[in-house]
Amino acid sequence: MIPRYSRPEMVAIWSPETKFRIWFEIEAHACDALAELGVIPKEAAKTIWDKGGKAVFDVARIDEIEAVTKHDVIAFLTHLAEIVGPDARFVHQGMTSSDVLDTTLNIQLVRACDILLAGLDRVLAALKARAFEHKDTVRIGRSHGIHAEPTTMGLTLARFYAEMDRNRARLVAARAEIATGAISGAVGTFANIDPRVEEHVCAALGLVPEPVSTQVIPRDRHAMFFAILGVIASSIENVAIEIRHMQRTEVLEAEEYFSPGQKGSSAMPHKRNPVLTENLTGLARLVRMSVVPAMENVALWHERDISHSSVERAIGPDTTVTLDFALHRLAGVIEKLVVYPENMEKNLNKFRGLVHSQRVLLALTQAGVSREDSYRLVQRNAMKVWEEGKDFLEELLADQEVRAALSEEQIREKFDLGYHTKHVDTIFKRVFGEA
Amino acid sequence: MIPRYSRPEMVAIWSPETKFRIWFEIEAHACDALAELGVIPKEAAKTIWDKGGKAVFDVARIDEIEAVTKHDVIAFLTHLAEIVGPDARFVHQGMTSSDVLDTTLNIQLVRACDILLAGLDRVLAALKARAFEHKDTVRIGRSHGIHAEPTTMGLTLARFYAEMDRNRARLVAARAEIATGAISGAVGTFANIDPRVEEHVCAALGLVPEPVSTQVIPRDRHAMFFAILGVIASSIENVAIEIRHMQRTEVLEAEEYFSPGQKGSSAMPHKRNPVLTENLTGLARLVRMSVVPAMENVALWHERDISHSSVERAIGPDTTVTLDFALHRLAGVIEKLVVYPENMEKNLNKFRGLVHSQRVLLALTQAGVSREDSYRLVQRNAMKVWEEGKDFLEELLADQEVRAALSEEQIREKFDLGYHTKHVDTIFKRVFGEA
Amino acid sequence: MIPRYSRPEMVAIWSPETKFRIWFEIEAHACDALAELGVIPKEAAKTIWDKGGKAVFDVARIDEIEAVTKHDVIAFLTHLAEIVGPDARFVHQGMTSSDVLDTTLNIQLVRACDILLAGLDRVLAALKARAFEHKDTVRIGRSHGIHAEPTTMGLTLARFYAEMDRNRARLVAARAEIATGAISGAVGTFANIDPRVEEHVCAALGLVPEPVSTQVIPRDRHAMFFAILGVIASSIENVAIEIRHMQRTEVLEAEEYFSPGQKGSSAMPHKRNPVLTENLTGLARLVRMSVVPAMENVALWHERDISHSSVERAIGPDTTVTLDFALHRLAGVIEKLVVYPENMEKNLNKFRGLVHSQRVLLALTQAGVSREDSYRLVQRNAMKVWEEGKDFLEELLADQEVRAALSEEQIREKFDLGYHTKHVDTIFKRVFGEA
Amino acid sequence: MIPRYSRPEMVAIWSPETKFRIWFEIEAHACDALAELGVIPKEAAKTIWDKGGKAVFDVARIDEIEAVTKHDVIAFLTHLAEIVGPDARFVHQGMTSSDVLDTTLNIQLVRACDILLAGLDRVLAALKARAFEHKDTVRIGRSHGIHAEPTTMGLTLARFYAEMDRNRARLVAARAEIATGAISGAVGTFANIDPRVEEHVCAALGLVPEPVSTQVIPRDRHAMFFAILGVIASSIENVAIEIRHMQRTEVLEAEEYFSPGQKGSSAMPHKRNPVLTENLTGLARLVRMSVVPAMENVALWHERDISHSSVERAIGPDTTVTLDFALHRLAGVIEKLVVYPENMEKNLNKFRGLVHSQRVLLALTQAGVSREDSYRLVQRNAMKVWEEGKDFLEELLADQEVRAALSEEQIREKFDLGYHTKHVDTIFKRVFGEA
Repeated sequence: MIPRYSRPEMVAIWSPETKFRIWFEIEAHACDALAELGVIPKEAAKTIWDKGGKAVFDVARIDEIEAVTKHDVIAFLTHLAEIVGPDARFVHQGMTSSDVLDTTLNIQLVRACDILLAGLDRVLAALKARAFEHKDTVRIGRSHGIHAEPTTMGLTLARFYAEMDRNRARLVAARAEIATGAISGAVGTFANIDPRVEEHVCAALGLVPEPVSTQVIPRDRHAMFFAILGVIASSIENVAIEIRHMQRTEVLEAEEYFSPGQKGSSAMPHKRNPVLTENLTGLARLVRMSVVPAMENVALWHERDISHSSVERAIGPDTTVTLDFALHRLAGVIEKLVVYPENMEKNLNKFRGLVHSQRVLLALTQAGVSREDSYRLVQRNAMKVWEEGKDFLEELLADQEVRAALSEEQIREKFDLGYHTKHVDTIFKRVFGEA
Repeated sequence: MIPRYSRPEMVAIWSPETKFRIWFEIEAHACDALAELGVIPKEAAKTIWDKGGKAVFDVARIDEIEAVTKHDVIAFLTHLAEIVGPDARFVHQGMTSSDVLDTTLNIQLVRACDILLAGLDRVLAALKARAFEHKDTVRIGRSHGIHAEPTTMGLTLARFYAEMDRNRARLVAARAEIATGAISGAVGTFANIDPRVEEHVCAALGLVPEPVSTQVIPRDRHAMFFAILGVIASSIENVAIEIRHMQRTEVLEAEEYFSPGQKGSSAMPHKRNPVLTENLTGLARLVRMSVVPAMENVALWHERDISHSSVERAIGPDTTVTLDFALHRLAGVIEKLVVYPENMEKNLNKFRGLVHSQRVLLALTQAGVSREDSYRLVQRNAMKVWEEGKDFLEELLADQEVRAALSEEQIREKFDLGYHTKHVDTIFKRVFGEA
Repeated sequence: MIPRYSRPEMVAIWSPETKFRIWFEIEAHACDALAELGVIPKEAAKTIWDKGGKAVFDVARIDEIEAVTKHDVIAFLTHLAEIVGPDARFVHQGMTSSDVLDTTLNIQLVRACDILLAGLDRVLAALKARAFEHKDTVRIGRSHGIHAEPTTMGLTLARFYAEMDRNRARLVAARAEIATGAISGAVGTFANIDPRVEEHVCAALGLVPEPVSTQVIPRDRHAMFFAILGVIASSIENVAIEIRHMQRTEVLEAEEYFSPGQKGSSAMPHKRNPVLTENLTGLARLVRMSVVPAMENVALWHERDISHSSVERAIGPDTTVTLDFALHRLAGVIEKLVVYPENMEKNLNKFRGLVHSQRVLLALTQAGVSREDSYRLVQRNAMKVWEEGKDFLEELLADQEVRAALSEEQIREKFDLGYHTKHVDTIFKRVFGEA
Repeated sequence: MIPRYSRPEMVAIWSPETKFRIWFEIEAHACDALAELGVIPKEAAKTIWDKGGKAVFDVARIDEIEAVTKHDVIAFLTHLAEIVGPDARFVHQGMTSSDVLDTTLNIQLVRACDILLAGLDRVLAALKARAFEHKDTVRIGRSHGIHAEPTTMGLTLARFYAEMDRNRARLVAARAEIATGAISGAVGTFANIDPRVEEHVCAALGLVPEPVSTQVIPRDRHAMFFAILGVIASSIENVAIEIRHMQRTEVLEAEEYFSPGQKGSSAMPHKRNPVLTENLTGLARLVRMSVVPAMENVALWHERDISHSSVERAIGPDTTVTLDFALHRLAGVIEKLVVYPENMEKNLNKFRGLVHSQRVLLALTQAGVSREDSYRLVQRNAMKVWEEGKDFLEELLADQEVRAALSEEQIREKFDLGYHTKHVDTIFKRVFGEA
């Protein structure tokens, strides 16, 4: 977790304070259930809530105890006993540390998910607004980095919207994957605790009881979770790469917003670097790197080994914090992206009409000219444009053989950009439900 | 794709014959739509189906043409023209190669998914049958590879079932991710083809039209697809590792089925190697290795670059074929797994009752003995078992201080395995809906 | 291994024929050593070489036997006995299958390395030739995709040369990593075979005896090997990305060679796609994906488990074949790369002299103008270029405040490109030892 | 970087204080060279060393300035000017931020390497000491987790030694890979700074000048560096897995040291979990996860983009700190590993002599019995051991058909463990140069 790539809201989820608060809530809810089942006194459960509920857990004190006990949950329970008093002996009855730890991790991941969803929504809102703003801003479409046929900036943004919208659905699925809890004991048999405790605690905390756990919640869930984060990161990279390309000196169809006061901008006014999207490219790599270790975590030995734990201590916070930061950075970039329609037009016309050569070719064949002849006709005029800098339309209009097949109007019609944008509304309706 | 790790059914999906058949169907369905829209003659569309529908495409001939044209789709269309005759000129009107290639890839992946689902169903059926068979077969649960508390073999299998059942849901989601088609032209604007063609072709082939495509279908879909395959592979590894552990010489709670005639088994009857599950461990790594490149494929330049193509030529077949093989190998292993309940019992009793020490500890504290004293009492008897090979139950019964707190009946009750299995039915009901 | 991305020379290494030939040689050399040690008759060793040395092993026959024995080495030995006769009983004495299999794999990897080294040498030769050709071809250097300061095409190529030269050294190290053999028996103790047999076989086959093996050669060697291949692939991607950028329509400083007859080139003469370097980008992902599974292969259980085997059956051939193909494809691209110095010059001058603004700024401060004032002076002239399309040099010459600090000659001198290329020779000497 | 998995010595390398100190040294050494070349006054260079050399840079102050300038190097230089006074204007002349940043990163990585080498040396020393201690401690070798032939604990440790020794050589190579510096300006042309400055600074700081750089030092070096760290981590996992297996309840051939006071040990004396080696397994995954992003960092756009930076901000510290911690944890585990030779013997004899069946088989064939008959003889006696719990030696001695081929002495000789350990010294000499 790198401070400069972190937002406090997400960082807070992973603080010791948050963790101990969740630990307390799990324990206290479990006490409620145990009290209801008659295992512990109802008064004790009430006292635990009363005293612990308003307590501020002293992280330094807990660390101090852990230095002696070498066990984090016991250290916390000891500290809790200092706060709650004798009734603390009813806490954690029949439970295993992992019951608390694993359920807590999932609660943290669920909360992280909710923050990520908000970030994704901000990205979606920005993409939608800018897509509609530039729905009809024509630019050249490129395959292989080479000019192909016209498209619009709105379509570019609409496809990123659609992709991010899929990511939203995936993230919702990821949330469901890890929104489970387990209070099932040392090997998951509920030997020492009634399954109804698990049900109560989970319900109280917005979780579903894990149908079958061992000492731990199965890690295929977490593998799926981090894999989905990796896909989202890859989509962020996708948008970032597009913007970096657009901002290239020779292309300059858009730029990241550059505040007037930003150092160094005016002596070399062309030197506005797409550092935010470059940064997003790197952050995507960081998010993605957690995918494989999360998958390697799945095959734990028997009812659990603890190899997953160190991995999750790192990728739990790091990956969610980084992705959260990246989503908001991306949203900011899109919200403020400076688009240059005039440069888009200039780029589009770079080859004086050659972009329409395919349409002319098609028109010739449809007018009955053979494929070979059509190709030859287009080619000889295209070459004049390419080699001598002529204008494609003018050359075609002046080519008698072409004119024998197509009228001036027919030829001019092939140079109409509207031809390429006629289905933009259809696509917008598909993506946004409106156009 | 390694022959020895391949099943013909999945391999067939990736054959040239299958590919060309799908190409034909896409083209022919597109002709239907184009005819319906009046772009091409209805007779032509009919002729194409009539002649192409029953044709066997000659892969060698197509390769021969491609050697000249250096373009696979053109080579196919040329061969198709050889079969269909003059009406072939109406084929592929307004379409781009990628329309055919990308839609075909998704159809292949969808079919692969269906085969994988069948494989997963076989795994699920095997796990369920064996889980019920061994629902009450007690074995020791292990955390950190060390004996913890008793569980049952049925629970082990039930949790693998639950995990694989989650994988089934994920695979269904993966199928939906890539069940889209696109016939949208060079940069996805439908400039040269009506969106209704795409709709018709997709409907005919069981796909959903891609809401917004460029020259290609967006690759976040494929990234998600392969990520899910990676999770499933990790679950396979999880089961494989469990079985490999069970088959260890010192544990021997289960073995892969070893046919009587299998070489080398009798001179060293203990030398039955879990080679199938070891192999599955390796295959899991192979499936998983496609996850990252599939994610790296997402950020294509502008409306497409072709960097994804070579990656998919490899991981498309290799990963689906390997996972398919692994699922069936796993199913076979589970179906025939030789379980040794008597060894499970022997292992469980390895420490002459020490496995019950936790329960005794709890009983003492519940009987009013302080935590410290309870611990001391359990410890001194446990040590006699550990160091002198005594029996834990007998030592406890003979310990006056223990007996002051607990009656013989109360102590004996702590050694009842039923205590650990009392909620097995509850868990089975959660997992299977029945117990 | 995808045929279209394969070269026969590398593919041949992985054929069954090559494999069986190596198996034979290991066995025959071992017989020599065993004969020398008096374990088997010298005549037998001679017969084995005489008959086996000239034999063509019948792959189909071996497969047939394996279908029965379910063991590849036994199948081969059985076939060998069919060829050699009764003396075949002296073959493989005291050896373990893995002795043959692991030593063979390393021989194949060593041979693959030698082919890769030749490929890398071709790349190096191409880079060097083109670097010297374009040593002084000035082009704009870019950071963040944005124009920075001038550099030369030769420097670009020289740095790729230096990078590939490092890769050559790494590949030599990789070769040494896996140039070991082991004939050490079931668990590596030489219980049934004298270590001198291993020494003889290794010496005969150009290998070093593995100092300590188990049943297998330790897999950290192979992990290192594939990691190095992954680095080389990443460097290939590095060059490929540079060329793809250079070929972008708006940049067009270089192009992959496009043969005159190549389809589709003339109707859209700008539509020359950098498909080879795009393909290399994808191939780099494929090579790289073997790195992690090769590392996961290191931790085998005890004296070996067989999980690594399936992984290596795939990545052994696939990764070496793909990288070999990529190296030759890259060499071809560089050898024939069409460079456009005139476009480089055009791009360099895109901002009418602004590229020199940094030097002017420095000159002003060195002439005693304060940092703030220097910046202001440069900025106000730069802005006229940026916003009004003026020429930077002319504006500076006309700016009285600038002229108060710098003479016309001093200003003009700042626009000399030679300033930027003055150390090119120094760098070339560092890289190539000559300039 | 997770505090509990961090050692202060390595953490210190990545502190802001260390970073600013290195920045200062690079700048000050550059000033020396610039002064020597007559570019700046010698007095200024002296003043900079005098004042800056003893200064404590105020991290908070630098952060404060950076909050305004949004540029870390400028913030530092501003703070340096506060310390040095007017002569500070001679600092950083002709240099680019990346000159400082990239050279600093490499210095940090070199220092990290030196610490890692010390850690590796500790591991090697521990492995060597324990290997000699247990050179002749016989244990069963296992392939596939199944008993195979005897080996010794010393051989197990010797092979880990050999593997770690290879890793040491790799780490030395990794150090050389990144022990370069670059002071070459905005695009690496030395336009604004003499190459001799680079040479001086590098020599002063123990680096080699990068032969050809762009704005940055090429990232194939860092990719190789992290790949090597990934291999070392995989070797750590290899050792960890072996120990985890040895500590399994059913095997118990060794245990991680468990201090007498460690909680929970005595009530369940068997419940000593190999948590350190499990942790190492997880840490290996964390180290390994940096390999792929480091490779993805290689292909920067043109003379640099900044995508690598965020990746390195994370993996630079995290990966070196984690690996360093892991090496020392591993060394501690090995140093204190509790080995149970008596359990090794017990496990070895688990099948009452069956482990020697292969030798008996061989002896029979060597005594002239046909392969088939030998096999049958061994098998029928082995089966009595396996199914009826008989002793293999006794059965063989009582088998008339066996005795017809082999004398009692010959049979007994096959049960001599010395047969398996006779080459241990040879192997030790290979590995350690002594035995």
